[in-house]
Amino acid sequence: MAKPFARIGLFAKQSTNNAAAFNTLLDFLSQHDLELLIESESARISHQSWPTKPREELAKHVDLVMVLGGDGSLLNAARAVVPFDVPILGVNRGRLGFLADIPPHQLELLLTPILAGDYIEEQRFLLEATIEREGQIIAQHKALNDVVLYAGSIARMFEFEVWLDQQLVVQQRSDGLITATPTGSTAYALAAGGPILYPTLKAITLVPMFPHTLSTRPIVVSDESEIELKITANNKVFPKLSLDGQVHLDLEPNDRIFIKKHKHLLRLIHPKHYNYFAVLREKLGWHASTALAEEHKLEVTPLAKI
Amino acid sequence: MAKPFARIGLFAKQSTNNAAAFNTLLDFLSQHDLELLIESESARISHQSWPTKPREELAKHVDLVMVLGGDGSLLNAARAVVPFDVPILGVNRGRLGFLADIPPHQLELLLTPILAGDYIEEQRFLLEATIEREGQIIAQHKALNDVVLYAGSIARMFEFEVWLDQQLVVQQRSDGLITATPTGSTAYALAAGGPILYPTLKAITLVPMFPHTLSTRPIVVSDESEIELKITANNKVFPKLSLDGQVHLDLEPNDRIFIKKHKHLLRLIHPKHYNYFAVLREKLGWHASTALAEEHKLEVTPLAKI
Amino acid sequence: MAKPFARIGLFAKQSTNNAAAFNTLLDFLSQHDLELLIESESARISHQSWPTKPREELAKHVDLVMVLGGDGSLLNAARAVVPFDVPILGVNRGRLGFLADIPPHQLELLLTPILAGDYIEEQRFLLEATIEREGQIIAQHKALNDVVLYAGSIARMFEFEVWLDQQLVVQQRSDGLITATPTGSTAYALAAGGPILYPTLKAITLVPMFPHTLSTRPIVVSDESEIELKITANNKVFPKLSLDGQVHLDLEPNDRIFIKKHKHLLRLIHPKHYNYFAVLREKLGWHASTALAEEHKLEVTPLAKI
Amino acid sequence: MAKPFARIGLFAKQSTNNAAAFNTLLDFLSQHDLELLIESESARISHQSWPTKPREELAKHVDLVMVLGGDGSLLNAARAVVPFDVPILGVNRGRLGFLADIPPHQLELLLTPILAGDYIEEQRFLLEATIEREGQIIAQHKALNDVVLYAGSIARMFEFEVWLDQQLVVQQRSDGLITATPTGSTAYALAAGGPILYPTLKAITLVPMFPHTLSTRPIVVSDESEIELKITANNKVFPKLSLDGQVHLDLEPNDRIFIKKHKHLLRLIHPKHYNYFAVLREKLGWHASTALAEEHKLEVTPLAKI
Repeated sequence: MAKPFARIGLFAKQSTNNAAAFNTLLDFLSQHDLELLIESESARISHQSWPTKPREELAKHVDLVMVLGGDGSLLNAARAVVPFDVPILGVNRGRLGFLADIPPHQLELLLTPILAGDYIEEQRFLLEATIEREGQIIAQHKALNDVVLYAGSIARMFEFEVWLDQQLVVQQRSDGLITATPTGSTAYALAAGGPILYPTLKAITLVPMFPHTLSTRPIVVSDESEIELKITANNKVFPKLSLDGQVHLDLEPNDRIFIKKHKHLLRLIHPKHYNYFAVLREKLGWHASTALAEEHKLEVTPLAKI
Repeated sequence: MAKPFARIGLFAKQSTNNAAAFNTLLDFLSQHDLELLIESESARISHQSWPTKPREELAKHVDLVMVLGGDGSLLNAARAVVPFDVPILGVNRGRLGFLADIPPHQLELLLTPILAGDYIEEQRFLLEATIEREGQIIAQHKALNDVVLYAGSIARMFEFEVWLDQQLVVQQRSDGLITATPTGSTAYALAAGGPILYPTLKAITLVPMFPHTLSTRPIVVSDESEIELKITANNKVFPKLSLDGQVHLDLEPNDRIFIKKHKHLLRLIHPKHYNYFAVLREKLGWHASTALAEEHKLEVTPLAKI
Repeated sequence: MAKPFARIGLFAKQSTNNAAAFNTLLDFLSQHDLELLIESESARISHQSWPTKPREELAKHVDLVMVLGGDGSLLNAARAVVPFDVPILGVNRGRLGFLADIPPHQLELLLTPILAGDYIEEQRFLLEATIEREGQIIAQHKALNDVVLYAGSIARMFEFEVWLDQQLVVQQRSDGLITATPTGSTAYALAAGGPILYPTLKAITLVPMFPHTLSTRPIVVSDESEIELKITANNKVFPKLSLDGQVHLDLEPNDRIFIKKHKHLLRLIHPKHYNYFAVLREKLGWHASTALAEEHKLEVTPLAKI
Repeated sequence: MAKPFARIGLFAKQSTNNAAAFNTLLDFLSQHDLELLIESESARISHQSWPTKPREELAKHVDLVMVLGGDGSLLNAARAVVPFDVPILGVNRGRLGFLADIPPHQLELLLTPILAGDYIEEQRFLLEATIEREGQIIAQHKALNDVVLYAGSIARMFEFEVWLDQQLVVQQRSDGLITATPTGSTAYALAAGGPILYPTLKAITLVPMFPHTLSTRPIVVSDESEIELKITANNKVFPKLSLDGQVHLDLEPNDRIFIKKHKHLLRLIHPKHYNYFAVLREKLGWHASTALAEEHKLEVTPLAKI
């Protein structure tokens, strides 16, 4: 039977303490008689000499992209991989990620079946943000987690408008707004009070950051929506836009940011027994039962009646 | 041209101070040469003698159901109307509702075009909750807003499990759980910290009530999900189930509640210029600008630099 | 040197699986040549025959009260102990409590110094709630954690007024209100979104439960305040009052509840190396680092600049 | 009888549309035969020629300081006024402030009694933040509202430790931390989820900003506490410190910020009938009743019983 993934491209987080793990991964893969291609920057931390390709090109030449690092490394790689319809898989460095869910000490156990074609594939969508200034498109970027509009500078609160499919949602004064995919709903948006969106839900969440109007709440809309953020003309603050916390853009008053679903879907690979809620419980400490005082449940003493 | 709604069924909130408004509405409609049928209980508050039908049957005999009252009255009527594929429309009593959005003093202006066929029709889904005890289905009810599992009695927190499509989501100790439709996301679920779901979003939100584990958060899942709530065996508390805050059921340990989308959709009528976000801003006071101190935006004085 | 605590009174949680631990504790204490007195109900779970005293009287005859159980057991005992100016100490059953902070396997290590007079003593205040109906006081109760006004029955939201030192704070529609001491601020009030009050802070917190007005927030006031809750006349709901989740009272429309600091302070004993924040971090999982995605901190890649 | 305030110092917000109101105020005061002194910068927006004094000196020469502007203007003036034991009073520009509570159209009605000695005086404390770098104090500033530690730059989350009276509270990863006085508890801290502290409560609140650990909660501690924030050594982010949103300082890894109550109290003047909760209800829209769906209260229909 043909190997499902004959050629494998590799990204590794740029960190010296990642070198040993990366070599272990390369050794493991080379035993499986696979063609390996390493992303140019990532190659620096390995002592091994495999062929390399630049970040933006790597995925074109392989059947599977593997990322060694945390969720952040996978986010970073995902934006380069998504145009090429190649699946991506994350190996973490010992701490479970939402995206990078193969622990380094289980390469043998978990990677072997995947390389044999036995795995789960999920489709995750990305957001695409287009910045328009004075009628011209000046930048366009993708994000797998979130597009964050934020003050970024001295004064915190600033004003902007949120539009959804040409309808005004709200004119808001706040520290900013997080527009997140389901994938990003468990990242920064969650810390900001947003809801958890099931990974395959066809929805986008808009999470206000410290809104001045206290009744403001997160909103969840269809993934087919076109969201527009307008930076109000008279702002003295020049806000910023962050994509996945990794790409940052400077904005100006009157800038318009259009956010919609990116046309390509990311193909994310998980080991066969992947269970989203198990990861969620683990990451958020939901099994760690017992934060609050027990008394409210256990000890109902004889009632006093008036 | 044929009238789109030749026969109109009417519900009115049971409240003596509703009588005058109800008669005004009946007068208005009778001038339009329409056949009117009144829900039996509602008929009590009117002095007029129109034919009546019981609650569960009324919608079968008409082309449009109108409800005079608040959102609660419309919720109540909706559960009876939904099996019959008849549109429903709410006339409020002076205070804008999310569902009942025709104010009584604008009957002429807003109702006339609707009766002429010029209106917006939205589809809203309901939840259907089935309670199983010892393998037997003992009750089945619908809800347009929410299905609320709650302690209801003396001790507050109790334990239950939440399952989604046969996967365990969480074993939770809390005051309960709100399962809400997009329609219900701006009702009780919102007060409990849930997100706002756009009305036509194909999603259900699960909002924990005062969860014991502080990292618990609202979750949004597909409207095709089957949710199961299992009341833990060793609970000393006998929780309750509430549907739209109007129907209440007593539960027992080991009961299982299955919640999924009801097969019939509700056809909700709005006036032509209906704008969801305008209603939201009005109801939640988002235009009421200016709660917090202005200083964080306005007055950045010369910086002190170290 | 004289023993600081020659006579010790004991409460134990009524639970059969508590019997072994209780006997261990009694054995440990009897080796120290102390006079032991057991609370009458608690005596049932021990095989040993020590003299007993009723709950309300026990503390009058001893120098120290020890409670075996969770925080709930200590709350329960505290209300009986507080009139007598006798210190109280909690031995938990294996799970750290905010109040019961001696684990059963460390009796020797932690209790021995305490019995020798080497310990930390903290003063904690209780709340006293007085219910007035038609001008008559009909009930008066104490609470170490919280006084909770709640719907308790079918319809959830109800109306009441909150007054502070004869000034109206707010007319509220909600599921209820939690009035908590600093001790109670880490119990039910915390699950309801209230702040953590440092244990010796001279303050009371008022935490609304699912308030209908979304801008409502927890308030913290002086421990010298007199709080009054008025059940609005036209409520159809008859709410309840709960004290420490253990004493429950039925209320009626027009009832007035007066809440203020109880005149006696509770003397709470901790082992010498007690550290409040260490308990807090342990109980709330604050050391369990790493809930959210790492990427927002670690991986700032080369910036894209417009 | 002697005038209680013979000499009045004036601050006015630097804004051209403030000129007319400032002249009106000056005219009003000059009719009362009072000696007026204007802060040098503020004098620019008036056409009248009164003697001026620099910001830091003005309060030394007067019996009362009046501020025309919003709460932000009063915050700004307060930091200059507090060393001199002179009361301060705010005249707003048409919108009620928490601090500036005299509306411009009620000068006659509300100011006249105050100038005659009939008023309420409240004491508000300020925070004092001292920044220590490599063992040297490099800056010290005051804040009436809040001291905000925040990322301020590209990557959002960063790490720091919070210590209280030499005890570690928490090692936190977040967007920052707001340390607020009761006065500041209704400003930025409130938007960030902090509790409302009664204005004269002797307490400080610590409000985490988007904490990575989801169980983190606001903490309230005594106003006698010494708080220390330590910027973790290995941070790649250089955070900032903001005082009242008006003074901003750049920090570095290993910096230590000590925050405690400033030794001087601010004497804040209110009109005789000032009512804190009335201001709170007005500013936060608590009277605007009726955000959520009415149905949860009003319409309990006949119960379905199993």
